[in-house]
Formats: sequence, structure tokens, C-alpha cells
Amino acid sequence: MRDSGGIRMKLGEIAKALDGRLIGDEAFEIERLASLASATKDDLSFIVSAKHEGALARSNVGALILAEGLVHLFDGHRIVVADPYAAYARISSSFDTLLHELPSIHPSACVHESAALADDVFVGANVVIESGARIGRGTRLMGGCFVGKQASVGNDCLIHPGVVIYHDVHLGDRVVVQASAVLGSDGFGFAPHDGRWTRIHQLGRLVIGDDVEIGASTCIDRGALDDTEIEDNVIIDNLVHIAHNVKIGTGTAIAGCTGIAGSTTIGKHCMIAGAVSINGHIAIADGTRINGGSVITRSTRAGQGYASGTPAQEVGAWRRSAARHGKLDELHARVVALEKRDR
Amino acid sequence: MRDSGGIRMKLGEIAKALDGRLIGDEAFEIERLASLASATKDDLSFIVSAKHEGALARSNVGALILAEGLVHLFDGHRIVVADPYAAYARISSSFDTLLHELPSIHPSACVHESAALADDVFVGANVVIESGARIGRGTRLMGGCFVGKQASVGNDCLIHPGVVIYHDVHLGDRVVVQASAVLGSDGFGFAPHDGRWTRIHQLGRLVIGDDVEIGASTCIDRGALDDTEIEDNVIIDNLVHIAHNVKIGTGTAIAGCTGIAGSTTIGKHCMIAGAVSINGHIAIADGTRINGGSVITRSTRAGQGYASGTPAQEVGAWRRSAARHGKLDELHARVVALEKRDR
Amino acid sequence: MRDSGGIRMKLGEIAKALDGRLIGDEAFEIERLASLASATKDDLSFIVSAKHEGALARSNVGALILAEGLVHLFDGHRIVVADPYAAYARISSSFDTLLHELPSIHPSACVHESAALADDVFVGANVVIESGARIGRGTRLMGGCFVGKQASVGNDCLIHPGVVIYHDVHLGDRVVVQASAVLGSDGFGFAPHDGRWTRIHQLGRLVIGDDVEIGASTCIDRGALDDTEIEDNVIIDNLVHIAHNVKIGTGTAIAGCTGIAGSTTIGKHCMIAGAVSINGHIAIADGTRINGGSVITRSTRAGQGYASGTPAQEVGAWRRSAARHGKLDELHARVVALEKRDR
Repeated sequence: MRDSGGIRMKLGEIAKALDGRLIGDEAFEIERLASLASATKDDLSFIVSAKHEGALARSNVGALILAEGLVHLFDGHRIVVADPYAAYARISSSFDTLLHELPSIHPSACVHESAALADDVFVGANVVIESGARIGRGTRLMGGCFVGKQASVGNDCLIHPGVVIYHDVHLGDRVVVQASAVLGSDGFGFAPHDGRWTRIHQLGRLVIGDDVEIGASTCIDRGALDDTEIEDNVIIDNLVHIAHNVKIGTGTAIAGCTGIAGSTTIGKHCMIAGAVSINGHIAIADGTRINGGSVITRSTRAGQGYASGTPAQEVGAWRRSAARHGKLDELHARVVALEKRDR
Repeated sequence: MRDSGGIRMKLGEIAKALDGRLIGDEAFEIERLASLASATKDDLSFIVSAKHEGALARSNVGALILAEGLVHLFDGHRIVVADPYAAYARISSSFDTLLHELPSIHPSACVHESAALADDVFVGANVVIESGARIGRGTRLMGGCFVGKQASVGNDCLIHPGVVIYHDVHLGDRVVVQASAVLGSDGFGFAPHDGRWTRIHQLGRLVIGDDVEIGASTCIDRGALDDTEIEDNVIIDNLVHIAHNVKIGTGTAIAGCTGIAGSTTIGKHCMIAGAVSINGHIAIADGTRINGGSVITRSTRAGQGYASGTPAQEVGAWRRSAARHGKLDELHARVVALEKRDR
Repeated sequence: MRDSGGIRMKLGEIAKALDGRLIGDEAFEIERLASLASATKDDLSFIVSAKHEGALARSNVGALILAEGLVHLFDGHRIVVADPYAAYARISSSFDTLLHELPSIHPSACVHESAALADDVFVGANVVIESGARIGRGTRLMGGCFVGKQASVGNDCLIHPGVVIYHDVHLGDRVVVQASAVLGSDGFGFAPHDGRWTRIHQLGRLVIGDDVEIGASTCIDRGALDDTEIEDNVIIDNLVHIAHNVKIGTGTAIAGCTGIAGSTTIGKHCMIAGAVSINGHIAIADGTRINGGSVITRSTRAGQGYASGTPAQEVGAWRRSAARHGKLDELHARVVALEKRDR
């Protein structure tokens, strides 16, 4: 677990930042935000339900964020809030200090003279910013990022090392992109002609809203003619593939290793688990939930949960199920024959 | 949708480039190539069948590429061609102007003195080209690419930002590689020895033909002893994994998130959909088609289509099917018992 | 197959390095380590069992590594060892010469003044090393790598081009990381609050042991509060996703395209095939084996093999099985009804 680097916060400050009620010493200094299992008496942790009572009893934690109804479970310093998990999320930023940077442009960065950078941006080592690109105030471009021609990155974004933002790709404000993600690559569009594939040049853009999060090595293609669009507050995990012309509605979450084929529309507030494959040219309705590892070939109904596949078994049992599966049609016919027998 | 940046083409030029018959004004200037839905009266679009008649009626499009039999569907400017979709693909390159570059080597690029570059290459910012590498005429290496020792890139290639081409990897002509792809990484080869894994150094090469397309963050391993080989006009989407010693035949298409394990041979003109897993040491015959999300563990027959897995269901129905699947062998036994009953 | 670049080894040296018994001429010079199929009379190859007898008969190979019991199969130069496959692995490093580098720091590298580099490191072109980072002796950082603040890389590591090592990530000795891998990205942690996702800053580290191998474009997240941990001699293939707080035990092998969700513990010496999806918050026991393409949602038992999914079929047969699968519950009810019939 990370060393705090000497940064400490007073419990009173933390309670105030969280609009919480402090039961304890406001001058008490917190060294780290920690899990119950690893916390020491100088650390702050949190519980979200009474089921953590046992872990709390075994913990050396010095201060705790919790809800009113659980105040009796702990007699150290307490910060009482309505939603302890959200409070933990909010205060976590105060302990994430290693990526703070003063506004500056590293001398090794290659910034085209026609690019427009706000005054207080941070541009790390070996960053490349091409002609006509625009970078908003407070945005950090970490080492080795690439921003193509006429692309724009909004305000207060954090673009981690090695990210490639193609030409004419547009990000809103407060977007976070993890390392080596690719935004705006050419979609997989080819026309067959005389027995060969001819590339269809991808002329659309990729447009990303505000407060979007994009995981490491995730690739989002630009549109073929119209745009690929990611709305506000969409969160996308690592190694996700989003093909050309896909639209994703606000608040949708997509876990790692998922792939979405071209021209599919994903609604608002969907929950798509990891390793899901979604066919092209279909519509995933608002609020759809999809289990991990599912293959979705048809449009879904709003608010419904979907899954495909079969549960894992030990290999011997799996082989038997798999063999029978391949002959299900025959088994069905045998049942029909039995039903037709004279009684 | 992208602004044209002031570039306009005359309809007469376009018709000529496409060997098409123009019905309309050859001096008419086209601003963008656009979808029917977003096209304005200054834009060019296309239709491939009569099923687009409704969309066409609702469109403001000014000029249309279409086939002879559909000429009556539109009374604006028309370019009549044999294959409108292929014509759209061909003309799309004329509207893709942002990546045009004059031959030049950016001062920040690190090019080894022993590397051999053709006169008219474009080498972007922070590109690294190592000793003995060769870059062919007309090729563009965009910002931050890496070309290892003794690697070669043919003529008229386009290598997008952040691509890593390992040592002794060889690309043909007109190869396009999307951002952050990795070409020639070490294969996953280890020998167990005294309860530990010992690395097998990967001594083969990766050899890629002409007119190949490789997607963003796709990784293709070099061979262990012999070479990994990708033949001409293979097209590969994003986040595809191709392991060591794989051979892929000409004209094969592989969609996103697919993985191919080591030493497997893929024939010519196969169509492999997204999120497919293909076992190692098997042969996928020429013209094989594989549905999205399938797991292929055995060799296939030429020209056949394959699939695995079960269709998605709503979660409640899926749970019931899944539970029964795990007891298919028992269900089969019960049917056998019923069949053996005396009538 | 790769040209040897003029480097030759004498058979006597090779036999000595492998603790092998030489039957043949110790002054015989080997040009390449090669497969049986491609070997010439100047090359060295190996066989691991009598099943290679046919391939050996067709080969032009000049020298062979083999076990005592197979000595009669070949009458050229022979090196007799206990385990020919392990011997091949060990000697392969002697033929992998293109990445040898003299200690040096490329002038284009951006190394922060507070970073601590051992004397004999190799730092390639455009590498970025941030404040407080430590690089051990003998380690090579190839072109364009990024090492974040307070990160550390042990001794004799090989970090291929384009790898991103986030701040406060720690690698042991002899770790090999293939191109564009991402180590220590923020995990996918968000708290819902007022109908929106709030980022949970990821304060844990990523700690990697000795002799670990990490594939191209593989992404391993740092921990949320505690650390993500990869123990010694774990080997991980390309495009693998490892989420926050995962622990992986020593000697475990994970093939390409596999994804492991957050807080799951993987035991020691597990064999996880490609394209496997493993749920979060479960425990994969020591020695577990998982077949390719499986979805694992529950904890496993030590030493057992697991699989899920159904075997691929030709599309027509697959459609029939798939349709029956969706009505398995109904089929079961029909069998129950038959069983209840009066005899």
C-alpha cells in the first residue's frame, strides 16, 4: 500500500469536505485512507453495512466513515455521513497526490505552433500536439501522449501516458483516459471489390462528453461518415473495443474486455459486465443489464437483465454436458416419440 | 461529422475517378461525403439497394452514387456505377485529407544513422527508427512510432501513432496499421524446468504481406523458430491477439477482440467475426466463416460456417436453461429409461 | 526465419552450456537454432519424443539436442541432455542477439534528476523516467517507455517499447514486459451518487515479483486501497486484463485475451487458457486448470480442471442445438410428465 508521502489531513477538514458529523477530535491527523485489514491507528477507513462488523473488530483503524445507524459499532473517531461509500469516493481524491502537477510544458514536448493551449495546462515529456488542436484549462497530458490535428480536449481532463487521440476527436470536460487508450482510430470498414478488400476511409469523428472515464488500452473507433458518440458520465474499463458509429448513452458502465460491434446503439444507464460481445446494428435499451461473458446478438428491452452461456463445470462433467448439448435436437425428437406412444 | 476543411471536389472529377456516368452538373461542387441522414444539398451520398428509398426521400442530399437500376429513385445529381458500395469506398479516400503530409523528418525523431529511408517518407514527431531498419517510399510513420533493428516497412504504408514494430519484422507495401498495435512481440513460449517457467527466446520473424490492415492495439507475435506470416490483403480489426507461428491466408478478415493461439493456420478468404477464440495447432480451412463469440477447438472444413455458445436470454430464463444444461447427462439417462419401459 | 547476423556458436560451447554429452565435433559451428522443417546442415534443432522421427528423417538438420533414449534416431552431431525442451529454451537466449545493448542513456531520454539509475542500465530513445523512480542494474528500457514517479524496476529487467509503468508501481528482478503493456492503471472503481458515477481514486500500488513475464498490451490495474500483487514467475500473455486488488500466486500461467475481475485471488501454479473470463471477488485455488473460452463465476477446488460453454458446430446444427437449449426447462418438464404417466 502506498506511503502517504508525508501528506496528512486533519479529521476536521475531512468531515467538513464530506458534510459529515464528526464524533472525535478534529485535530486528529490522518496519514492514509486504508482498507480495514491494513489500516493502522493513524488511518481512515469506512464501512457500508453491519456485515463489516467482524472485520472492524479485527482492525486497528483509527478513524471511520460510517452511516448514522452504525455509529455504535465503533468507538474511535467517526465521521457520520448519509452515504459512506460515496463519501469514501469523494475523499479518495485528497489522498491521490502523486499526479498533481504545476502548469508547465515539458521542453521535450512537440507542440505545433497552431495548437491552442490554455494557460494552465500540464504537458508532459515527449507529448505531441498537432496543428489546430485545442487543450482546455487545467488539463494534464502525461508523458508521451499524442493529440492529432484539429482534435480538442476539454477542461480539467487527465490523459495518462501513451494515449493516442486521433485527428478531429473531441473530448468534453473532466474526462480521464488511462494509459495507451486509442481514441478515434479508423473503423473496420472495407468494401469487397474484385475479390479483394478496399478500405473505406473513415470520415466521421469521435465525440466524447463530459465526465467520461476510459480504461487502459481501450480502443474507440471514429465514425465512417457520421460520428461515434459517447455521452456524459459513461465509464469504460480496460481493453474494451468500441467500433465505428456506436452511440453510448449517459451513465452507462462497461467493464473490461467487452466488445461492441459497429453501428450499435447503447442506451442510458446500462450495466454491461466484462467480456461481453455485442453484435452490430442492434439497440441495447436504456437500463439494460448484461452478465459477464454474454454474447448479445439481438436488441434488448429496457431495464431487463440478459445472459448467455453455460455455467462452468469440472472438466469431466462439462464434457458430458457438452456432448449431450450437441445432440439436443435428437433428444427432443426422442421425447416427442415417447409422448406419441400409446399409453 | 467532420468539416471538410474547405476542400471541395467537382462532381465531374468524382464521376471520372469512379468510371461513372454523370447525370447532372459536372461543375457542381461537393463539400462532404455524408450519410443520407446527415447530408445537405452540398453533399454526396450513395445507396446500395431500393431499401434505402425511404431514407432517401427524407434526405436533403444533393448528389448520389447509385446503380443503373435505381436511377429513377432520385432526381438530383447522380453518378451511375456498377457497384455503388465499392465506388463509395474508392472515393472516400479523396475526402480523407487530414493525414496528408509532405515528405519530411520531424527534428525530434530519433533515426539511427544506419537506417535506410526512402527520399519521400514522412517521419513524425518522436518517432524512433533503429539500426538497419528500412522505410520504403511514400510511407508515413506518425508520431511516436517505434521501428526496431533490421525491421522493414514497404512503400506507401501508413503507420499510426504509437505503433511498435519490433526488430526484424517485415511489412509489405500499402500496409495500414492503426495506433498502438504491436507487431512482432515475443510469443508466449516457456519450458517448465524444476517447477519454474524458463523463457524460450523467440527467434522467428513476423512477415506481413501487401495491402494488409491491422487494427488499434492488435498484437501479433513473432515466430518461435519459424516465422509468423500474414499474407496479402488480410484485414484485422482492433484488439486482436495473434500468437506465434500463426499463418493467415490472403483475403481473410478478422473482427475485433478475436484471439488465435499459437501455430494455428488460417486459410484464405475466411470471415472470422468478433470475440472468437481459436485454439492452437489447428487448421481453419479456406473460406471458413465463424460466428461472433465462438470458441473453435478443432480444425474446420472449407467453406463451412461454424458457431458455438447459446443465445442470450433474459436472466430468469437463462438461469433455468443453465441449470438444466448442467444436468443434461442425467436428463438423457431418464429419456433412455423411459424408452426402455415396457409399452 | 531470422538471419543469424553472422553470430555462430561452436557445438562444444553449446554442449557445455547445457551440461550435455556431445556426440560429434565440438568445433562444428552452428549458424541458427531452427525447426526441423527449416533447418539446414549448419543449424541446430531438437526433438522431445520419438514421434518426431518422421520429421527428423525429412530434415536437413546438422546437429540435434535429444534425450539418451532417442540417440539412435539421428547420426549427425548430437547433444544428449535429460530434458531437450528445457535445453532448447535455455540455449535459445544465446541466439537472441538483436536486443543486446551496451549500457547507455539515449540523449533524447527524459530522466528526472531525482531518479536513481544503476550505472549499467540501457535507456532507449524517448524514454521518460519521472521523479523518484529507481532502475536496477542491467535493466533495459527500450524506446518510448514511461516510468512514473516513485516507481521501481529491479535488476536485469527488459521493458519493451511503449510500456507504461505508472507511479508507485514496483517490479522485481528479471521481469520482461512486452510492448505497450500498461502496469498500474487506475482500477474501475466508481461510486453511484445522485444518479451519477463518482470516481474512486485508486490509492493502492501494483507490486510484481521476480522472473515475471507480461505480454503485449496487457493491462494490470493498481489496487484501490491495498495492492494488486503478482508473485514470482507468473507468466502472462498478450491482451490480458487484470483488475484492481487481484492477487496471482507464483508460477501461474495466463494465456492471451483472458480477463480477471477485481479482488479475485488466483492461486499458485494455475494454468489459465486463453479468452477466459473470471468473475470478481472469488478464489481460484492452487493448481486450478481452466479451458480456453470459459467463464468462471465461482471459486474453484485445488488441482481441478474447469470448462464452460458448448462445442462449436456447423451453423445449421448449432442453430438447432441453440433453439433446443432455450427450451431445456420445458423439455425437462415433459420428461417429468412422461415419468409420471401410468405404466
